[in-house]
Amino acid sequence: MKVLYNGDFIEKKDAHVDIEDRGYQFGDGVYEVIRVYNGTLFTLKEHTERLFKSAKEIGIHLQGTVSDMEEKLKQLVAHNQLTDGGVYIQVTRGVAPRKHQYGDSLTPQITAYTFQVKKPVQEQTAGAKALLSVDLRWLRCDIKSLNLLYNVMEKQKASEAGAFEAILIRDGFVTEGTSSNVYAVIDGVIRTHPANNLILNGITRRKLLEVCEEEGCSVEETRISKEELLHAQEIFISSTTAEVIPIVEIDGQRVGEGIPGEITKRVQEGFQNKIKHESEASISS
Amino acid sequence: MKVLYNGDFIEKKDAHVDIEDRGYQFGDGVYEVIRVYNGTLFTLKEHTERLFKSAKEIGIHLQGTVSDMEEKLKQLVAHNQLTDGGVYIQVTRGVAPRKHQYGDSLTPQITAYTFQVKKPVQEQTAGAKALLSVDLRWLRCDIKSLNLLYNVMEKQKASEAGAFEAILIRDGFVTEGTSSNVYAVIDGVIRTHPANNLILNGITRRKLLEVCEEEGCSVEETRISKEELLHAQEIFISSTTAEVIPIVEIDGQRVGEGIPGEITKRVQEGFQNKIKHESEASISS
Repeated sequence: MKVLYNGDFIEKKDAHVDIEDRGYQFGDGVYEVIRVYNGTLFTLKEHTERLFKSAKEIGIHLQGTVSDMEEKLKQLVAHNQLTDGGVYIQVTRGVAPRKHQYGDSLTPQITAYTFQVKKPVQEQTAGAKALLSVDLRWLRCDIKSLNLLYNVMEKQKASEAGAFEAILIRDGFVTEGTSSNVYAVIDGVIRTHPANNLILNGITRRKLLEVCEEEGCSVEETRISKEELLHAQEIFISSTTAEVIPIVEIDGQRVGEGIPGEITKRVQEGFQNKIKHESEASISS
Repeated sequence: MKVLYNGDFIEKKDAHVDIEDRGYQFGDGVYEVIRVYNGTLFTLKEHTERLFKSAKEIGIHLQGTVSDMEEKLKQLVAHNQLTDGGVYIQVTRGVAPRKHQYGDSLTPQITAYTFQVKKPVQEQTAGAKALLSVDLRWLRCDIKSLNLLYNVMEKQKASEAGAFEAILIRDGFVTEGTSSNVYAVIDGVIRTHPANNLILNGITRRKLLEVCEEEGCSVEETRISKEELLHAQEIFISSTTAEVIPIVEIDGQRVGEGIPGEITKRVQEGFQNKIKHESEASISS
């Protein structure tokens, strides 16, 4: 398999990271996960722009343009003849003797590779379980950084308890999942946390807001209290690889009827149509 | 230079990290920095024990004992014939295809190397400047994890402003510096944040509390408000590599007389005596 490594395509086994890469020692970098459908990088531009934005937020200045990066990622997909799967890309600040502060001479390290995706069909169809956890993360969750330890810890707890996701609660309100955005249907309205510093504004989240508008579903970007969540008619989560997954049980308690709700199913269907539409449009363009 | 790499001593140029090392992709690991004086690893046991404790907190199970690890680090220092400097060691959860949750089959990756230390004599003698920053970090700062991005960002701001350290304020109270603990002398009493989830309980901090007791200085582990800090008689910070540094200016404002205070100097001297005493004791034992 070919890996994009600082502009070159090399074999994965030859892609070695320096032990003094600041990504390894400080988590000093940012990343994206992009889904490939039908050989096409879905929402490539949005992901690439966000990568540049995240990098800028932490003071990493990427050479080249968003378009250059998009082109490289398309080439990576072509090299690996990937039809259905994903691309992971990360950018770290560079390699230097370890100290917190950095000079202006560092060269960002860019690593990207393709991977297979096992579409979570079972969870998408029948729904999945979630746990509630406390959100102890930093207050810049809007930056898609490599500092993911707390997300890892809580996802692991969920996984060990047989749940698909941990939904994080900060000060009594739902923020997001460890690797997903969270939505609840309350009084017929789909609600999700506003895109501020407390959540990562998912590309799938943005697409779902479009879908909701197109489908005529009412949406509000207002925070959901824990109590509201526990009494919601429907709950679902979204992410690049999970797409849209109904949550039918939280902390052992049924959500609504304990089966995927009608509004969730409409959103799922609308999103699948969008994928189909945009992937085909991209191929024919 | 030799590097300790998963139990073996290899040349640094041969120590390569896998791009799917979870340390690289999630900051999923912990670390220590240990000072070497006179060929001896200072407070080796305390650092090694804390490394094991941090690892355990995030569910990494290290093979072998604290003593085994201490022995390896002593060998590393000997291999590199280091007399005065430091050792950096980090442990990550292992290498695996990227997803947040992890199996129980992963092998922790251990990397350690020695480095030179430029003792900050100028700052120790004349004092240093600090900035105030907002503490936006996660709420498990007691774990010495690789998720250091916010520390990096704020240290960089300080550095660009010509300051030695950024002192972090959470909810109106001083927590710690980006890579140091913070102390203020208020009404003749040395105060520092209690060792809870909001700070990393520095090994140097623990040693300084001993020094204070031995020197007959009054110490209280109670949090310091921002206002109290700005009107403190003396301020100092401590870390493994910085040792004890007087802060004589904060946000452009003089601390006390704008020179290192008497209590700070007593603590500095007591700490230097402790280093001398323990390093000599270790060599003769």
